[in-house]
Amino acid sequence: MAGDGQMPEAASPALEPLDEPECLRLISAGGVGRIGYTGRFGPTVVPVNYALYEGTLVFRTGRHSPTGEDLRTGIEHAESKVAFEIDEISPATREGWSILVQGSAHPVDSQAERASVLKSGVEAWAGGDKELFVRVIPTRITGRRIRRTGPDAAG
Amino acid sequence: MAGDGQMPEAASPALEPLDEPECLRLISAGGVGRIGYTGRFGPTVVPVNYALYEGTLVFRTGRHSPTGEDLRTGIEHAESKVAFEIDEISPATREGWSILVQGSAHPVDSQAERASVLKSGVEAWAGGDKELFVRVIPTRITGRRIRRTGPDAAG
Repeated sequence: MAGDGQMPEAASPALEPLDEPECLRLISAGGVGRIGYTGRFGPTVVPVNYALYEGTLVFRTGRHSPTGEDLRTGIEHAESKVAFEIDEISPATREGWSILVQGSAHPVDSQAERASVLKSGVEAWAGGDKELFVRVIPTRITGRRIRRTGPDAAG
Repeated sequence: MAGDGQMPEAASPALEPLDEPECLRLISAGGVGRIGYTGRFGPTVVPVNYALYEGTLVFRTGRHSPTGEDLRTGIEHAESKVAFEIDEISPATREGWSILVQGSAHPVDSQAERASVLKSGVEAWAGGDKELFVRVIPTRITGRRIRRTGPDAAG
């Protein structure tokens, strides 16, 4: 910690990069993540409930929802570039981690693939007809963890 | 069919849009939000600690961090289009709300403006030299709330 130019504070934060296996371990339980993409109104970020399934992040949306329409390009086999962010941050301690998965969004169109991703068990919390499964196929997975160390911590 | 601890399937979710005053009320306390933008590796979403200040969302980042560099276009007065998402979602009840602010990211360059936004009191939780203030100037604010109704819903 010495000599890194940080401001002296009661508890100074340390930012650690996380390697890919650790990122995958942290996101393997599924839950709420945020999908980011460029939509009709520019950059867009919305929370979705996801599952990690066969190395992809699977979530459900409405085929005619804004997200569903933005992620369906209308061109067969064409995929949108997306970001998927998952974090767990405690406001009380200001500690936590965040993972950023970057890749492409693949709308599940075939019956065979749909039958496969159904096994992920993922549900959409928002309800309604969330009949479109989308898989995020990662091309880049990065993460970081914030820990706080007190002034007396050995460093 | 009460299932203790388990999410009751019978409680069906209702999605309500939130109007702009309600969105602003929900995000006025500040805290952790996620900024989304198109960076060097495509769509990018990262958590930042923000404050609502004079109708803009203010956060701090490193001038030479990936986010700082991606949001500084290098062209004076040019601004990046961004999304800023804030939510509060309970995994236990699967209820909550999310707000999406879309607009432009304005890096604070002048000393006068910097002196002004310092009053927001916003800090970067990740530490380090977070000397760049960025203001997100909203052009579109939308939000939604998920409530669960039905035989097993609480309340």
